[in-house]
Amino acid sequence: MSLPPQRAELFYTGKAKQVFRTSDPDVYWIHFTDGATAFNGVKRATIRDKGEVNARISAHIFERVAAAGVPTHLLGAPSPVDHLVHRVDIIPVEVVVRNLAAGSICKRLGLEEGTALPRPMVEFFYKSDELNDPLITDEHALMFGWAEAWELAYLRHASLKVNQVLRAFWDELGVTLVDFKLEFGRAMARERRGQILLADEITPDGSRLWEKGTGRHLDKDVFRRDLGDLGDTYRELFARIFGEQLHGG
Amino acid sequence: MSLPPQRAELFYTGKAKQVFRTSDPDVYWIHFTDGATAFNGVKRATIRDKGEVNARISAHIFERVAAAGVPTHLLGAPSPVDHLVHRVDIIPVEVVVRNLAAGSICKRLGLEEGTALPRPMVEFFYKSDELNDPLITDEHALMFGWAEAWELAYLRHASLKVNQVLRAFWDELGVTLVDFKLEFGRAMARERRGQILLADEITPDGSRLWEKGTGRHLDKDVFRRDLGDLGDTYRELFARIFGEQLHGG
Repeated sequence: MSLPPQRAELFYTGKAKQVFRTSDPDVYWIHFTDGATAFNGVKRATIRDKGEVNARISAHIFERVAAAGVPTHLLGAPSPVDHLVHRVDIIPVEVVVRNLAAGSICKRLGLEEGTALPRPMVEFFYKSDELNDPLITDEHALMFGWAEAWELAYLRHASLKVNQVLRAFWDELGVTLVDFKLEFGRAMARERRGQILLADEITPDGSRLWEKGTGRHLDKDVFRRDLGDLGDTYRELFARIFGEQLHGG
Repeated sequence: MSLPPQRAELFYTGKAKQVFRTSDPDVYWIHFTDGATAFNGVKRATIRDKGEVNARISAHIFERVAAAGVPTHLLGAPSPVDHLVHRVDIIPVEVVVRNLAAGSICKRLGLEEGTALPRPMVEFFYKSDELNDPLITDEHALMFGWAEAWELAYLRHASLKVNQVLRAFWDELGVTLVDFKLEFGRAMARERRGQILLADEITPDGSRLWEKGTGRHLDKDVFRRDLGDLGDTYRELFARIFGEQLHGG
Protein backbone atom coordinates (compact mmCIF):
# COMPACT_ATOMS: atom_id res chain seq x y z
CA MET A 1 0.00 0.00 0.00
CA SER A 2 1.35 3.43 -0.97
CA LEU A 3 1.87 6.25 1.52
CA PRO A 4 -0.87 8.85 1.82
CA PRO A 5 -0.11 12.03 -0.20
CA GLN A 6 1.84 14.67 1.72
CA ARG A 7 0.78 18.32 1.70
CA ALA A 8 2.95 20.48 -0.58
CA GLU A 9 2.84 24.13 -1.72
CA LEU A 10 -0.17 26.42 -1.41
CA PHE A 11 -2.00 26.57 -4.73
CA TYR A 12 -5.01 28.81 -4.08
CA THR A 13 -6.48 30.83 -1.20
CA GLY A 14 -10.25 31.28 -1.16
CA LYS A 15 -12.55 33.06 1.25
CA ALA A 16 -12.84 30.15 3.69
CA LYS A 17 -10.46 27.54 2.28
CA GLN A 18 -6.87 27.02 1.20
CA VAL A 19 -5.95 24.53 -1.51
CA PHE A 20 -2.54 22.86 -1.52
CA ARG A 21 -0.83 20.56 -3.96
CA THR A 22 0.37 17.23 -2.62
CA SER A 23 3.07 14.71 -3.38
CA ASP A 24 0.57 13.11 -5.81
CA PRO A 25 -0.05 15.42 -8.83
CA ASP A 26 -3.65 14.17 -9.13
CA VAL A 27 -4.54 14.85 -5.50
CA TYR A 28 -5.15 18.22 -3.83
CA TRP A 29 -5.39 19.05 -0.14
CA ILE A 30 -8.15 21.42 1.01
CA HIS A 31 -7.82 23.16 4.36
CA PHE A 32 -10.98 24.68 5.85
CA THR A 33 -10.31 27.95 7.74
CA ASP A 34 -12.42 29.84 10.28
CA GLY A 35 -12.79 32.79 7.87
CA ALA A 36 -16.28 34.11 7.12
CA THR A 37 -17.10 36.60 4.38
CA ALA A 38 -20.34 37.98 2.98
CA PHE A 39 -21.43 40.35 0.22
CA ASN A 40 -18.56 39.24 -2.01
CA GLY A 41 -15.92 39.84 0.66
CA VAL A 42 -17.16 43.21 1.94
CA LYS A 43 -18.03 41.79 5.39
CA ARG A 44 -15.40 39.62 7.06
CA ALA A 45 -14.89 37.83 10.36
CA THR A 46 -13.20 34.86 11.99
CA ILE A 47 -15.64 32.37 13.53
CA ARG A 48 -14.14 29.84 15.94
CA ASP A 49 -14.83 26.19 14.92
CA LYS A 50 -16.31 27.21 11.56
CA GLY A 51 -13.61 25.45 9.54
CA GLU A 52 -14.03 22.22 11.44
CA VAL A 53 -17.84 22.25 11.35
CA ASN A 54 -17.81 22.93 7.61
CA ALA A 55 -15.14 20.34 6.84
CA ARG A 56 -16.95 17.65 8.80
CA ILE A 57 -20.43 18.50 7.50
CA SER A 58 -19.22 18.66 3.92
CA ALA A 59 -17.37 15.33 4.20
CA HIS A 60 -20.47 13.73 5.71
CA ILE A 61 -22.71 15.11 2.96
CA PHE A 62 -20.29 14.13 0.18
CA GLU A 63 -20.20 10.57 1.48
CA ARG A 64 -24.01 10.38 1.42
CA VAL A 65 -24.17 11.90 -2.04
CA ALA A 66 -21.53 9.50 -3.38
CA ALA A 67 -23.46 6.58 -1.90
CA ALA A 68 -26.50 7.84 -3.84
CA GLY A 69 -24.55 7.64 -7.10
CA VAL A 70 -23.14 11.14 -7.60
CA PRO A 71 -19.34 10.91 -7.69
CA THR A 72 -17.45 13.55 -5.71
CA HIS A 73 -13.87 14.75 -5.49
CA LEU A 74 -13.52 13.59 -1.87
CA LEU A 75 -10.86 10.97 -1.16
CA GLY A 76 -10.66 11.27 2.60
CA ALA A 77 -10.13 13.56 5.58
CA PRO A 78 -6.53 13.57 6.91
CA SER A 79 -7.68 15.79 9.81
CA PRO A 80 -10.98 17.29 11.05
CA VAL A 81 -10.26 20.48 9.05
CA ASP A 82 -8.71 18.96 5.90
CA HIS A 83 -9.94 17.08 2.84
CA LEU A 84 -7.91 15.11 0.35
CA VAL A 85 -9.56 15.40 -3.05
CA HIS A 86 -9.16 14.42 -6.67
CA ARG A 87 -7.56 17.22 -8.66
CA VAL A 88 -10.23 18.78 -10.89
CA ASP A 89 -10.58 21.61 -13.37
CA ILE A 90 -13.42 23.59 -11.77
CA ILE A 91 -16.29 24.29 -14.21
CA PRO A 92 -16.88 28.07 -13.92
CA VAL A 93 -20.64 27.55 -13.69
CA GLU A 94 -21.95 27.59 -10.13
CA VAL A 95 -25.20 25.76 -9.60
CA VAL A 96 -27.88 26.87 -7.16
CA VAL A 97 -30.77 24.53 -6.39
CA ARG A 98 -33.81 26.17 -4.82
CA ASN A 99 -36.76 24.53 -3.08
CA LEU A 100 -38.16 27.79 -1.67
CA ALA A 101 -37.47 31.30 -2.95
CA ALA A 102 -34.98 33.22 -0.78
CA GLY A 103 -32.09 35.62 -1.26
CA SER A 104 -31.14 36.92 -4.70
CA ILE A 105 -34.03 35.39 -6.64
CA CYS A 106 -36.56 37.27 -4.47
CA LYS A 107 -35.01 40.63 -5.27
CA ARG A 108 -34.43 39.74 -8.91
CA LEU A 109 -37.92 38.41 -9.71
CA GLY A 110 -40.01 40.14 -7.06
CA LEU A 111 -40.86 37.02 -5.04
CA GLU A 112 -41.66 36.95 -1.36
CA GLU A 113 -39.04 35.20 0.81
CA GLY A 114 -40.19 31.66 1.51
CA THR A 115 -42.41 31.29 -1.55
CA ALA A 116 -42.66 27.58 -2.33
CA LEU A 117 -41.53 26.72 -5.86
CA PRO A 118 -43.70 24.24 -7.77
CA ARG A 119 -40.61 22.05 -8.23
CA PRO A 120 -36.91 22.36 -7.39
CA MET A 121 -35.30 25.06 -9.53
CA VAL A 122 -31.78 24.97 -10.94
CA GLU A 123 -29.99 28.24 -11.69
CA PHE A 124 -26.52 28.69 -13.19
CA PHE A 125 -24.17 31.53 -12.27
CA TYR A 126 -20.89 32.49 -13.87
CA LYS A 127 -18.17 32.02 -11.23
CA SER A 128 -16.53 35.46 -11.12
CA ASP A 129 -15.88 37.48 -7.96
CA GLU A 130 -15.16 40.51 -10.13
CA LEU A 131 -18.63 40.33 -11.74
CA ASN A 132 -20.35 39.23 -8.53
CA ASP A 133 -21.30 35.79 -9.93
CA PRO A 134 -23.96 36.88 -12.46
CA LEU A 135 -26.93 34.70 -13.39
CA ILE A 136 -26.39 33.11 -16.80
CA THR A 137 -28.39 31.12 -19.29
CA ASP A 138 -27.32 27.88 -20.95
CA GLU A 139 -26.60 29.89 -24.10
CA HIS A 140 -24.06 32.08 -22.29
CA ALA A 141 -22.23 29.02 -20.92
CA LEU A 142 -22.16 27.37 -24.34
CA MET A 143 -21.26 30.45 -26.37
CA PHE A 144 -18.44 31.57 -24.09
CA GLY A 145 -17.10 28.04 -23.69
CA TRP A 146 -17.71 27.77 -19.93
CA ALA A 147 -19.32 24.34 -20.28
CA GLU A 148 -20.56 21.99 -22.96
CA ALA A 149 -24.19 21.04 -23.47
CA TRP A 150 -23.74 17.54 -22.02
CA GLU A 151 -21.97 19.02 -19.01
CA LEU A 152 -24.86 21.43 -18.32
CA ALA A 153 -27.27 18.51 -18.65
CA TYR A 154 -25.21 16.51 -16.17
CA LEU A 155 -24.94 19.46 -13.77
CA ARG A 156 -28.75 19.73 -13.74
CA HIS A 157 -29.21 15.98 -13.27
CA ALA A 158 -26.58 15.62 -10.55
CA SER A 159 -27.68 18.76 -8.69
CA LEU A 160 -31.30 17.64 -8.54
CA LYS A 161 -30.17 14.22 -7.31
CA VAL A 162 -28.04 15.88 -4.60
CA ASN A 163 -31.07 17.99 -3.68
CA GLN A 164 -33.15 14.83 -3.17
CA VAL A 165 -30.52 13.34 -0.89
CA LEU A 166 -30.02 16.55 1.07
CA ARG A 167 -33.70 17.37 1.51
CA ALA A 168 -34.26 13.97 3.10
CA PHE A 169 -31.11 14.37 5.22
CA TRP A 170 -32.08 17.80 6.59
CA ASP A 171 -35.76 16.90 6.92
CA GLU A 172 -34.85 14.13 9.36
CA LEU A 173 -32.95 16.71 11.42
CA GLY A 174 -35.94 19.07 11.56
CA VAL A 175 -34.45 21.47 9.03
CA THR A 176 -35.85 22.73 5.72
CA LEU A 177 -33.32 22.89 2.89
CA VAL A 178 -34.29 26.17 1.21
CA ASP A 179 -31.45 26.37 -1.32
CA PHE A 180 -27.79 25.49 -1.73
CA LYS A 181 -24.85 26.06 -4.02
CA LEU A 182 -22.79 23.42 -5.78
CA GLU A 183 -19.64 23.41 -7.86
CA PHE A 184 -18.41 20.69 -10.15
CA GLY A 185 -15.06 19.95 -11.72
CA ARG A 186 -13.64 17.90 -14.55
CA ALA A 187 -11.39 15.14 -13.18
CA MET A 188 -7.77 15.72 -14.28
CA ALA A 189 -6.22 12.29 -13.65
CA ARG A 190 -5.58 10.48 -16.93
CA GLU A 191 -7.64 7.46 -15.86
CA ARG A 192 -10.60 9.67 -14.87
CA ARG A 193 -10.76 11.94 -17.91
CA GLY A 194 -14.33 12.74 -18.95
CA GLN A 195 -15.67 12.31 -15.42
CA ILE A 196 -17.39 15.24 -13.73
CA LEU A 197 -17.07 15.26 -9.95
CA LEU A 198 -19.02 17.20 -7.36
CA ALA A 199 -16.31 19.47 -5.95
CA ASP A 200 -15.69 22.37 -3.55
CA GLU A 201 -17.97 21.89 -0.53
CA ILE A 202 -21.58 21.69 0.57
CA THR A 203 -21.85 23.52 3.87
CA PRO A 204 -24.13 25.94 5.75
CA ASP A 205 -21.94 28.68 4.20
CA GLY A 206 -23.51 28.02 0.80
CA SER A 207 -26.91 26.69 1.90
CA ARG A 208 -30.06 28.17 3.40
CA LEU A 209 -31.31 26.01 6.25
CA TRP A 210 -34.45 26.99 8.16
CA GLU A 211 -35.49 25.24 11.38
CA LYS A 212 -38.88 23.64 10.83
CA GLY A 213 -41.64 25.22 12.87
CA THR A 214 -39.70 28.30 13.97
CA GLY A 215 -38.15 29.34 10.62
CA ARG A 216 -34.95 30.15 12.52
CA HIS A 217 -31.92 30.53 10.22
CA LEU A 218 -29.27 27.85 10.72
CA ASP A 219 -26.85 29.04 8.03
CA LYS A 220 -24.57 31.88 7.01
CA ASP A 221 -27.53 34.30 6.84
CA VAL A 222 -27.02 34.53 10.62
CA PHE A 223 -23.73 36.27 9.78
CA ARG A 224 -24.94 38.16 6.67
CA ARG A 225 -27.93 39.61 8.49
CA ASP A 226 -26.52 39.83 12.05
CA LEU A 227 -29.12 37.42 13.43
CA GLY A 228 -26.95 35.97 16.19
CA ASP A 229 -23.66 34.15 16.81
CA LEU A 230 -22.64 32.15 13.75
CA GLY A 231 -20.28 29.95 15.77
CA ASP A 232 -23.08 28.91 18.13
CA THR A 233 -25.35 28.21 15.13
CA TYR A 234 -22.71 26.06 13.43
CA ARG A 235 -21.92 24.13 16.62
CA GLU A 236 -25.64 23.52 17.04
CA LEU A 237 -25.85 22.15 13.50
CA PHE A 238 -22.87 19.90 14.23
CA ALA A 239 -24.60 18.50 17.31
CA ARG A 240 -27.83 17.88 15.38
CA ILE A 241 -26.01 15.96 12.66
CA PHE A 242 -23.48 13.97 14.67
CA GLY A 243 -25.44 13.58 17.90
CA GLU A 244 -22.55 14.95 19.98
CA GLN A 245 -21.06 18.30 20.93
CA LEU A 246 -18.01 19.46 18.97
CA HIS A 247 -14.87 18.78 21.09
CA GLY A 248 -17.07 17.09 23.64
CA GLY A 249 -18.68 20.59 24.20
CA MET B 1 -66.24 45.51 -47.88
CA SER B 2 -66.54 46.50 -44.22
CA LEU B 3 -65.55 49.90 -42.88
CA PRO B 4 -62.09 50.21 -41.31
CA PRO B 5 -62.16 50.00 -37.51
CA GLN B 6 -62.63 53.33 -35.72
CA ARG B 7 -60.46 54.40 -32.80
CA ALA B 8 -62.19 54.04 -29.42
CA GLU B 9 -61.11 54.44 -25.78
CA LEU B 10 -57.51 54.58 -24.59
CA PHE B 11 -56.48 51.20 -23.27
CA TYR B 12 -52.82 51.58 -22.27
CA THR B 13 -50.20 54.36 -22.19
CA GLY B 14 -46.59 53.30 -22.60
CA LYS B 15 -43.36 55.28 -22.70
CA ALA B 16 -43.56 56.15 -26.40
CA LYS B 17 -46.92 54.72 -27.48
CA GLN B 18 -50.61 54.80 -26.67
CA VAL B 19 -52.85 51.82 -27.34
CA PHE B 20 -56.56 52.29 -28.07
CA ARG B 21 -59.40 49.89 -28.53
CA THR B 22 -61.35 50.14 -31.78
CA SER B 23 -64.85 49.41 -33.01
CA ASP B 24 -63.58 45.87 -33.76
CA PRO B 25 -62.89 43.98 -30.50
CA ASP B 26 -60.07 42.02 -32.15
CA VAL B 27 -58.26 45.10 -33.45
CA TYR B 28 -56.20 47.63 -31.49
CA TRP B 29 -54.93 51.03 -32.58
CA ILE B 30 -51.35 52.01 -31.64
CA HIS B 31 -50.40 55.68 -31.67
CA PHE B 32 -46.65 56.47 -31.71
CA THR B 33 -45.77 59.59 -29.68
CA ASP B 34 -42.67 61.79 -29.69
CA GLY B 35 -41.85 60.77 -26.12
CA ALA B 36 -38.38 59.46 -25.34
CA THR B 37 -37.34 57.82 -22.08
CA ALA B 38 -34.20 56.07 -20.90
CA PHE B 39 -32.96 54.24 -17.79
CA ASN B 40 -36.45 52.88 -17.09
CA GLY B 41 -38.12 56.29 -17.31
CA VAL B 42 -35.58 58.28 -15.27
CA LYS B 43 -34.52 60.40 -18.29
CA ARG B 44 -37.34 61.88 -20.40
CA ALA B 45 -37.71 64.18 -23.40
CA THR B 46 -39.92 64.96 -26.38
CA ILE B 47 -38.19 64.47 -29.74
CA ARG B 48 -39.94 66.06 -32.75
CA ASP B 49 -40.73 63.52 -35.51
CA LYS B 50 -39.72 60.55 -33.37
CA GLY B 51 -43.23 59.05 -33.36
CA GLU B 52 -43.52 59.26 -37.12
CA VAL B 53 -40.03 57.90 -37.82
CA ASN B 54 -40.60 54.99 -35.46
CA ALA B 55 -44.10 54.22 -36.79
CA ARG B 56 -42.92 54.23 -40.38
CA ILE B 57 -39.70 52.26 -39.75
CA SER B 58 -41.53 49.68 -37.65
CA ALA B 59 -44.27 49.24 -40.27
CA HIS B 60 -41.66 48.86 -42.99
CA ILE B 61 -39.70 46.30 -40.97
CA PHE B 62 -42.82 44.34 -39.97
CA GLU B 63 -43.84 44.09 -43.64
CA ARG B 64 -40.43 42.67 -44.56
CA VAL B 65 -40.48 40.27 -41.65
CA ALA B 66 -44.00 39.08 -42.53
CA ALA B 67 -42.91 38.55 -46.14
CA ALA B 68 -40.10 36.36 -44.79
CA GLY B 69 -42.64 34.15 -42.99
CA VAL B 70 -42.84 35.57 -39.46
CA PRO B 71 -46.43 36.67 -38.84
CA THR B 72 -46.87 40.03 -37.10
CA HIS B 73 -49.70 41.90 -35.44
CA LEU B 74 -49.66 44.66 -38.09
CA LEU B 75 -52.84 45.14 -40.11
CA GLY B 76 -52.13 48.55 -41.59
CA ALA B 77 -51.25 52.18 -40.94
CA PRO B 78 -54.24 54.53 -40.83
CA SER B 79 -51.86 57.50 -40.53
CA PRO B 80 -48.07 58.02 -40.52
CA VAL B 81 -48.06 57.82 -36.69
CA ASP B 82 -50.66 55.05 -36.19
CA HIS B 83 -50.78 51.27 -36.61
CA LEU B 84 -53.84 49.05 -36.70
CA VAL B 85 -52.94 45.71 -35.16
CA HIS B 86 -54.37 42.36 -34.21
CA ARG B 87 -55.32 42.26 -30.56
CA VAL B 88 -52.82 40.08 -28.68
CA ASP B 89 -52.06 38.94 -25.17
CA ILE B 90 -48.46 40.13 -24.82
CA ILE B 91 -46.11 37.35 -23.65
CA PRO B 92 -44.23 38.86 -20.66
CA VAL B 93 -40.90 37.58 -22.00
CA GLU B 94 -38.94 40.20 -23.91
CA VAL B 95 -36.46 38.84 -26.41
CA VAL B 96 -33.12 40.47 -27.18
CA VAL B 97 -31.08 39.23 -30.14
CA ARG B 98 -27.40 40.20 -30.10
CA ASN B 99 -24.88 40.04 -32.94
CA LEU B 100 -22.21 42.05 -31.11
CA ALA B 101 -21.94 42.56 -27.36
CA ALA B 102 -23.12 46.01 -26.22
CA GLY B 103 -25.06 47.52 -23.34
CA SER B 104 -26.22 45.41 -20.41
CA ILE B 105 -24.49 42.17 -21.39
CA CYS B 106 -21.08 43.90 -21.33
CA LYS B 107 -21.53 45.06 -17.77
CA ARG B 108 -23.12 41.79 -16.68
CA LEU B 109 -20.53 39.40 -18.16
CA GLY B 110 -17.47 41.66 -18.37
CA LEU B 111 -17.32 41.87 -22.18
CA GLU B 112 -15.85 44.72 -24.15
CA GLU B 113 -18.40 46.76 -26.12
CA GLY B 114 -18.39 45.62 -29.72
CA THR B 115 -17.11 42.09 -29.05
CA ALA B 116 -18.29 39.89 -31.92
CA LEU B 117 -20.36 36.91 -30.76
CA PRO B 118 -19.60 33.57 -32.42
CA ARG B 119 -23.27 33.35 -33.44
CA PRO B 120 -26.38 35.45 -32.80
CA MET B 121 -27.40 35.22 -29.14
CA VAL B 122 -30.97 35.17 -27.83
CA GLU B 123 -31.66 36.41 -24.29
CA PHE B 124 -35.00 36.47 -22.48
CA PHE B 125 -36.02 39.16 -19.98
CA TYR B 126 -39.05 39.27 -17.74
CA LYS B 127 -41.14 42.26 -18.81
CA SER B 128 -41.46 44.26 -15.58
CA ASP B 129 -40.73 47.98 -15.21
CA GLU B 130 -40.80 47.53 -11.45
CA LEU B 131 -38.02 44.93 -11.56
CA ASN B 132 -36.13 46.65 -14.39
CA ASP B 133 -36.73 43.78 -16.86
CA PRO B 134 -34.45 41.15 -15.26
CA LEU B 135 -32.64 38.51 -17.31
CA ILE B 136 -34.38 35.15 -16.96
CA THR B 137 -33.73 31.55 -17.90
CA ASP B 138 -36.16 29.24 -19.68
CA GLU B 139 -36.80 27.57 -16.33
CA HIS B 140 -38.02 30.83 -14.77
CA ALA B 141 -40.43 31.42 -17.65
CA LEU B 142 -41.77 27.87 -17.45
CA MET B 143 -41.98 27.65 -13.66
CA PHE B 144 -43.72 30.98 -13.18
CA GLY B 145 -46.05 30.41 -16.15
CA TRP B 146 -44.81 33.31 -18.25
CA ALA B 147 -44.57 31.14 -21.37
CA GLU B 148 -44.77 27.50 -22.38
CA ALA B 149 -41.86 25.46 -23.70
CA TRP B 150 -43.17 25.49 -27.29
CA GLU B 151 -43.64 29.25 -27.07
CA LEU B 152 -40.05 29.79 -25.93
CA ALA B 153 -38.88 27.57 -28.79
CA TYR B 154 -40.94 29.61 -31.25
CA LEU B 155 -39.68 32.92 -29.80
CA ARG B 156 -36.10 31.76 -30.37
CA HIS B 157 -36.83 30.53 -33.90
CA ALA B 158 -38.80 33.61 -34.94
CA SER B 159 -36.34 36.06 -33.35
CA LEU B 160 -33.36 34.52 -35.14
CA LYS B 161 -35.30 34.63 -38.41
CA VAL B 162 -36.13 38.31 -37.84
CA ASN B 163 -32.45 38.90 -37.09
CA GLN B 164 -31.49 37.40 -40.46
CA VAL B 165 -33.94 39.66 -42.27
CA LEU B 166 -32.90 42.77 -40.35
CA ARG B 167 -29.16 42.20 -40.60
CA ALA B 168 -29.45 42.07 -44.40
CA PHE B 169 -31.77 45.09 -44.39
CA TRP B 170 -29.44 47.28 -42.31
CA ASP B 171 -26.28 45.97 -44.01
CA GLU B 172 -27.54 47.29 -47.35
CA LEU B 173 -27.99 50.70 -45.73
CA GLY B 174 -24.44 50.74 -44.38
CA VAL B 175 -25.52 50.01 -40.82
CA THR B 176 -24.49 47.19 -38.45
CA LEU B 177 -27.35 45.67 -36.45
CA VAL B 178 -25.71 45.20 -33.05
CA ASP B 179 -28.78 44.07 -31.11
CA PHE B 180 -32.52 44.61 -30.91
CA LYS B 181 -35.52 43.86 -28.70
CA LEU B 182 -38.67 42.02 -29.74
CA GLU B 183 -41.99 41.31 -28.10
CA PHE B 184 -44.52 38.70 -29.09
CA GLY B 185 -48.18 38.20 -28.33
CA ARG B 186 -50.76 35.46 -28.43
CA ALA B 187 -53.46 36.30 -30.99
CA MET B 188 -56.81 36.81 -29.23
CA ALA B 189 -59.26 36.54 -32.15
CA ARG B 190 -61.14 33.25 -32.04
CA GLU B 191 -60.02 32.27 -35.54
CA ARG B 192 -56.36 32.99 -34.71
CA ARG B 193 -56.11 31.21 -31.34
CA GLY B 194 -52.78 29.43 -30.94
CA GLN B 195 -50.95 31.83 -33.23
CA ILE B 196 -48.03 33.86 -31.86
CA LEU B 197 -47.54 37.20 -33.56
CA LEU B 198 -44.55 39.52 -33.52
CA ALA B 199 -45.98 42.54 -31.68
CA ASP B 200 -45.06 45.92 -30.22
CA GLU B 201 -42.50 47.56 -32.52
CA ILE B 202 -39.01 47.18 -33.96
CA THR B 203 -37.47 50.65 -34.02
CA PRO B 204 -34.17 52.42 -33.31
CA ASP B 205 -35.59 52.92 -29.78
CA GLY B 206 -35.09 49.22 -29.07
CA SER B 207 -32.17 48.48 -31.42
CA ARG B 208 -28.46 49.28 -31.50
CA LEU B 209 -27.45 50.46 -34.96
CA TRP B 210 -23.84 51.42 -35.67
CA GLU B 211 -22.79 53.12 -38.90
CA LYS B 212 -20.33 50.89 -40.74
CA GLY B 213 -16.84 52.34 -40.91
CA THR B 214 -17.39 55.12 -38.38
CA GLY B 215 -19.13 53.19 -35.60
CA ARG B 216 -21.41 56.21 -35.14
CA HIS B 217 -24.54 55.41 -33.09
CA LEU B 218 -27.78 55.68 -35.07
CA ASP B 219 -30.16 54.68 -32.30
CA LYS B 220 -31.51 55.69 -28.90
CA ASP B 221 -28.01 55.48 -27.36
CA VAL B 222 -27.62 58.99 -28.84
CA PHE B 223 -30.22 60.05 -26.28
CA ARG B 224 -29.13 57.71 -23.45
CA ARG B 225 -25.51 58.84 -23.67
CA ASP B 226 -25.99 62.45 -24.88
CA LEU B 227 -24.12 61.81 -28.13
CA GLY B 228 -26.03 64.35 -30.25
CA ASP B 229 -29.53 65.27 -31.43
CA LEU B 230 -31.79 62.22 -31.46
CA GLY B 231 -34.28 63.89 -33.84
CA ASP B 232 -31.55 64.53 -36.41
CA THR B 233 -30.34 60.95 -36.06
CA TYR B 234 -33.83 59.53 -36.54
CA ARG B 235 -34.55 61.78 -39.55
CA GLU B 236 -31.24 60.64 -41.05
CA LEU B 237 -32.25 56.99 -40.58
CA PHE B 238 -35.59 57.75 -42.23
CA ALA B 239 -33.84 59.26 -45.25
CA ARG B 240 -31.50 56.26 -45.54
CA ILE B 241 -34.37 53.81 -45.51
CA PHE B 242 -36.93 55.61 -47.64
CA GLY B 243 -34.60 57.58 -49.91
CA GLU B 244 -36.37 60.85 -49.14
CA GLN B 245 -36.42 63.47 -46.42
CA LEU B 246 -39.23 63.28 -43.86
CA HIS B 247 -41.93 65.88 -44.80
CA GLY B 248 -39.95 66.68 -47.95
CA GLY B 249 -37.29 68.03 -45.47
